[in-house]
Amino acid sequence: MTLSHGRPYLAIPGPSVMPDRVLNAMHRAAPNIYEGALVDMVAGLVPDLKAVARTKGHAAIYIANGHGAWEAAASNTVRPGDKVLVLSTGRFATGWSEVFARLGARMQVIDFGKQSPIDLARAETALAADTGHEIKAVVAVHIDTSTSVKNDVPGLRAVLDKLGHPALLMIDCIASLAVDPFEMDAWGVDVMVAASQKGLMTPPGLGFVFFNDKAAARQPETASFYWDWTPRAKPDFFYQYFGGTAPTHHLFALREALDMIAEEGGIEAVWARHEKLARAAWAAFEAWGQGGPLEMNIADPALRSHAVTALRLDGDNGTRLRRWVEEKAGLTLGIGLGMAEPGSPEADRFFRMGHMGHINAHMLMGALGVIESGFEALGIPYGPGALNAAAKVIAEA
Amino acid sequence: MTLSHGRPYLAIPGPSVMPDRVLNAMHRAAPNIYEGALVDMVAGLVPDLKAVARTKGHAAIYIANGHGAWEAAASNTVRPGDKVLVLSTGRFATGWSEVFARLGARMQVIDFGKQSPIDLARAETALAADTGHEIKAVVAVHIDTSTSVKNDVPGLRAVLDKLGHPALLMIDCIASLAVDPFEMDAWGVDVMVAASQKGLMTPPGLGFVFFNDKAAARQPETASFYWDWTPRAKPDFFYQYFGGTAPTHHLFALREALDMIAEEGGIEAVWARHEKLARAAWAAFEAWGQGGPLEMNIADPALRSHAVTALRLDGDNGTRLRRWVEEKAGLTLGIGLGMAEPGSPEADRFFRMGHMGHINAHMLMGALGVIESGFEALGIPYGPGALNAAAKVIAEA
Amino acid sequence: MTLSHGRPYLAIPGPSVMPDRVLNAMHRAAPNIYEGALVDMVAGLVPDLKAVARTKGHAAIYIANGHGAWEAAASNTVRPGDKVLVLSTGRFATGWSEVFARLGARMQVIDFGKQSPIDLARAETALAADTGHEIKAVVAVHIDTSTSVKNDVPGLRAVLDKLGHPALLMIDCIASLAVDPFEMDAWGVDVMVAASQKGLMTPPGLGFVFFNDKAAARQPETASFYWDWTPRAKPDFFYQYFGGTAPTHHLFALREALDMIAEEGGIEAVWARHEKLARAAWAAFEAWGQGGPLEMNIADPALRSHAVTALRLDGDNGTRLRRWVEEKAGLTLGIGLGMAEPGSPEADRFFRMGHMGHINAHMLMGALGVIESGFEALGIPYGPGALNAAAKVIAEA
Amino acid sequence: MTLSHGRPYLAIPGPSVMPDRVLNAMHRAAPNIYEGALVDMVAGLVPDLKAVARTKGHAAIYIANGHGAWEAAASNTVRPGDKVLVLSTGRFATGWSEVFARLGARMQVIDFGKQSPIDLARAETALAADTGHEIKAVVAVHIDTSTSVKNDVPGLRAVLDKLGHPALLMIDCIASLAVDPFEMDAWGVDVMVAASQKGLMTPPGLGFVFFNDKAAARQPETASFYWDWTPRAKPDFFYQYFGGTAPTHHLFALREALDMIAEEGGIEAVWARHEKLARAAWAAFEAWGQGGPLEMNIADPALRSHAVTALRLDGDNGTRLRRWVEEKAGLTLGIGLGMAEPGSPEADRFFRMGHMGHINAHMLMGALGVIESGFEALGIPYGPGALNAAAKVIAEA
Repeated sequence: MTLSHGRPYLAIPGPSVMPDRVLNAMHRAAPNIYEGALVDMVAGLVPDLKAVARTKGHAAIYIANGHGAWEAAASNTVRPGDKVLVLSTGRFATGWSEVFARLGARMQVIDFGKQSPIDLARAETALAADTGHEIKAVVAVHIDTSTSVKNDVPGLRAVLDKLGHPALLMIDCIASLAVDPFEMDAWGVDVMVAASQKGLMTPPGLGFVFFNDKAAARQPETASFYWDWTPRAKPDFFYQYFGGTAPTHHLFALREALDMIAEEGGIEAVWARHEKLARAAWAAFEAWGQGGPLEMNIADPALRSHAVTALRLDGDNGTRLRRWVEEKAGLTLGIGLGMAEPGSPEADRFFRMGHMGHINAHMLMGALGVIESGFEALGIPYGPGALNAAAKVIAEA
Repeated sequence: MTLSHGRPYLAIPGPSVMPDRVLNAMHRAAPNIYEGALVDMVAGLVPDLKAVARTKGHAAIYIANGHGAWEAAASNTVRPGDKVLVLSTGRFATGWSEVFARLGARMQVIDFGKQSPIDLARAETALAADTGHEIKAVVAVHIDTSTSVKNDVPGLRAVLDKLGHPALLMIDCIASLAVDPFEMDAWGVDVMVAASQKGLMTPPGLGFVFFNDKAAARQPETASFYWDWTPRAKPDFFYQYFGGTAPTHHLFALREALDMIAEEGGIEAVWARHEKLARAAWAAFEAWGQGGPLEMNIADPALRSHAVTALRLDGDNGTRLRRWVEEKAGLTLGIGLGMAEPGSPEADRFFRMGHMGHINAHMLMGALGVIESGFEALGIPYGPGALNAAAKVIAEA
Repeated sequence: MTLSHGRPYLAIPGPSVMPDRVLNAMHRAAPNIYEGALVDMVAGLVPDLKAVARTKGHAAIYIANGHGAWEAAASNTVRPGDKVLVLSTGRFATGWSEVFARLGARMQVIDFGKQSPIDLARAETALAADTGHEIKAVVAVHIDTSTSVKNDVPGLRAVLDKLGHPALLMIDCIASLAVDPFEMDAWGVDVMVAASQKGLMTPPGLGFVFFNDKAAARQPETASFYWDWTPRAKPDFFYQYFGGTAPTHHLFALREALDMIAEEGGIEAVWARHEKLARAAWAAFEAWGQGGPLEMNIADPALRSHAVTALRLDGDNGTRLRRWVEEKAGLTLGIGLGMAEPGSPEADRFFRMGHMGHINAHMLMGALGVIESGFEALGIPYGPGALNAAAKVIAEA
Repeated sequence: MTLSHGRPYLAIPGPSVMPDRVLNAMHRAAPNIYEGALVDMVAGLVPDLKAVARTKGHAAIYIANGHGAWEAAASNTVRPGDKVLVLSTGRFATGWSEVFARLGARMQVIDFGKQSPIDLARAETALAADTGHEIKAVVAVHIDTSTSVKNDVPGLRAVLDKLGHPALLMIDCIASLAVDPFEMDAWGVDVMVAASQKGLMTPPGLGFVFFNDKAAARQPETASFYWDWTPRAKPDFFYQYFGGTAPTHHLFALREALDMIAEEGGIEAVWARHEKLARAAWAAFEAWGQGGPLEMNIADPALRSHAVTALRLDGDNGTRLRRWVEEKAGLTLGIGLGMAEPGSPEADRFFRMGHMGHINAHMLMGALGVIESGFEALGIPYGPGALNAAAKVIAEA
């Protein structure tokens, strides 16, 4: 039998659960793209986006996924032959690195493995060695969705400042924007990349690049028409916001999502909710791990993302658990990503749980509850008291 | 702070959670009501409804809520002056009784209190005393949503058969249809009343009356135009199905809900899911009650509804808990109903949890999880191991 | 080939075209029916409904179609044996008459045929003959959707006043509310019946009965539980508004529709739009009729409904035209109703065009345009200049 | 007063009217992007897209608007320094030219003005002069949405073949795909670019590049990560279809739109509908022009797009007419584009009417009808019989 018939719950690390209000906002007739409701609305959208990114800088909106936003950011910052330092803590920093490389940049990648954040000392050593300032950009992810590690972005800025290194600091916040605290201006980030489908609770299809005047001043002449961030950030005509036809329905969806953030009490309230929910999940993971094979990929809570937690079991139990909770309980967990060769037996150890966006206490407890059922059903040992531990964290609200 | 921002979860005893597919089915242009898609569809709807009700008898669909369906059933079965025996096990049997009374019936009500099912022996005594067969209808609810008790319908039929009493057996399945096992024909039920918004996962607005040939033969001439079940069950023209304009959007919604039941594996699969989920909830309630004030209203699991559980705490903790889980966790529980004077301090002890319709394992575990958080936050004592106990029942799936 | 692929356009005399906003308003999770958003909203809904009905009297909302609202009104005004005078101008007055009759009323029906309004002189004669005031209610439709005639409601009141006859004046505005000017209080109407699916642009499923203190004072004790308008109009508890579970989704739909009426500029603006659109349609019908068989059922424009126009062609051309515009052009017209025996060859002469509710100038011109195409394609003669004549009326806006 | 309250009708040259079914298809929970319904569906989507494009070649889907698809096509075909011949017949060919230029191509633009198609003789002369085959691509639009001219694509292929010129033939079908007949393979087109929001009836946000083996073989190494068409056309992993996260909701929308095309009878039926509707519109435009200032931009019907018609009036009557039909009648027409300096008095002469996608006979006749009303209301002279002329074309269906 199955107990899955009810609301499906997608707890992968993005796309996240779409709010009914956001879906309703997309359920509308096509608007005029030259004047009227759409044009009026977009004028107010950009400031609200910047507020979520905590920047007074510039914002360019792209019809693209996160990979497109990566390419947009790269196209506007490096020219062929420029050197780029990538501080890799998982698959996604590596992915962005490939985008830079395809644009002709010379890549210097420091790999911190799959369970650690950036080691600032090593980053400092590398930058200090670049006495000629050939490195034009230092690239990192805030949260790597594959490992669920969180990097110390202000620490990176401090390293650059200490060395007086002029490289741009470029951060991928695709999985962290509107989830983990992030302060673009206060932290001295020059370029930040994000997308719609995670903390912003909008279907995949919009990418965002935020940049400051310093980055703007370095824009190479090689930036392509579509990726050029200048007209998007300072359009003379409405269509320039989007380099052509506006993504009409997504924009109304994003407007609704931003309204929901405001109604919740603003971005700090959203951050606080995510932190509490993440801590509840970790309390359960910790307790289960005391009596069984479950381990969180990142041992130190201070280094963990509030958006997603990467986990491992033994044998093929990661995959078995995912299958069980989906088929029996209506919960879809994320596959492990970048931890082992896809399709290899090793890959079946891993899984991830997304806890970002439109998620509240009963959803989180429901996901944890049926994971415990899965352990029980599959004979995977687990420590006691996990759900109560999570419930107690929720009780602090 | 609040952890409620995410999908709201309405766990009251109806209306139940509406599936996205059902809502989508209602999101359509108005159809022609004389020919075409709507007319074609309704022809197949009625047999599927009967299959869910387990009857080869007749079905009449009303644009009405459950109270309307009560009145429809009453109008087609009794005339002014007829005697009706109501076997009351909570507020809803009493409510139906009032409807009969307003139509001029003479009511004989046996009240079995708020924590017990019908005592068949007492029912037998009452019927045996009716040697002149003045009682034209024996009326009961299958599940009373206020007390969450489940009555023994085949047992009632056996009493009538034993006595050779010709009264119609009329059962309210508003809260049990497509939740608890019910066999209209096999159990010898003559008239059954249901509604759209509970197990049938369709917004409130449709009421159903199922009846057999025996009941049809007794229809009084006093049945009103709107309530008359004959043209609705055997229409010569399409509009007669609905005594006028068809409830267009609800019908497409109901069609989708019936399709979902079929896709799950039919009504037996739906029953099995509800039973397992109810047992999981009870396991948690039982465990919590071992170390605190929580009590289920119906002590014997065999007498409990699979659709809703009525519970009590002490003091005003029922209301405090409801408020906490709604404001902090996004879960809405039901108020106690009919257990105490509305608005009285006593009323604040009670609450109910609906677990009917479009509900699966993670939803149930999520509701239970945040109830435990509520106990913790509010300082309400509770026994240990409740969530694990529920998870273990789910694991049997 | 077909040119029907595009937005279907349902121009039958109800249900009318559902606005996207109304459908969106129904696309929502089930709300709590004891407190919160739904309860808060309904408090404001009733005054807005009354404003549309132009009354300071009482309003009772029913989960029902128009036939249900008929029965509600009848149940609250007559007792078995009461005499009711029905002034019939088409199928719907006759229909209401049957509802009264089934409740035990003695019916006196004056039939004014299918092409004429009520003859006030004949009505006066009948009432004057009732010296004993046995007639308890005078019943008429404002607009009969079958004939599209409009009756002189203030004239009826004047007759009653002249005679000092105390009968209740009961008017069916199902097809005219929020379409044709109607002033319940100013015109001295005691009971008015309406429904959701025409001028109110909400799917079928809600019926309304408005009544004044005079009508309230005459309520018979025989009113049934479900139809009793007293608790619905003056509820002590929220559920009494609806005699049980609220029609949750329809209420949000109706709220949106009432907001749309307000945004248009209020009910007078809505009336003015319907009048202009009706006059545009009539200009075309008139011109076509100059050179072909088309005739409007009601010759005098002052007696025509603004909601629907009943038309006739010759032979089976009514049906042929309906089929052609639906299959080739995506427009669905209404069948003739009550003009000939259903299924008879004669019935194929007739058709009706609804022009009520969410309809604007391009929709009306589109319907007229493809009717002219249909004439052309089917070889039905038609006079010239019809579309230009309609366009000129629109140009007056 | 206004007669605009009803369904808004957007008759601009894209985005086109979104079908309810397409919007419903987007109204769904976020799907898993690694396996399940989305992944299964996309496998069938690509062949159906190719069928609409009439090619057995390759298809790459981009999250992008048409400008993004332009850049994708350009990135995969030219390297910096390559020469590109652009045959410009309006603003959009010029726009694509800028995209090529920004990628470093050397542009040779032949401008055929704003009222003429490509002159094949001049194209031949230019290509014949390129004896060294420096021209790597010949670029044109099938339909230019600004001028509404249609170019002779097979004629262009014939010129290239006659000269034995190896340049790629690259065609923009953004406004013509699924509207005007187009045969990618039969016409020898090497690269074709399209987008979702016009004939494909899906909100803006998807761009498409179709290419054959010849084009694939010439892909430069400079193609960027995001634009590289190879993994999108031949993905090893699902995410490669979209260069990262899939545009989940748009894909379900597109699936529905393709289903609607199939249900209509396939792409030929869609073409035939558009041709008939365009001819009906032209019949009205022609007739109005006989007695007033209205002129179609393209005089020869054989050279006109079936998707959009560019028109001119005198003085500022283009803008006045657009305003009138929107404010009074609920119809939104398109502004003139590229015909005069934006904001200049001259620009107010022009307007365009889109007649593409989800459009049927009553919609078209409705748009024409209220344009005639606008002429009347604004005192713009117009010839007689226009609407009847259009209706007669519709009657041929």
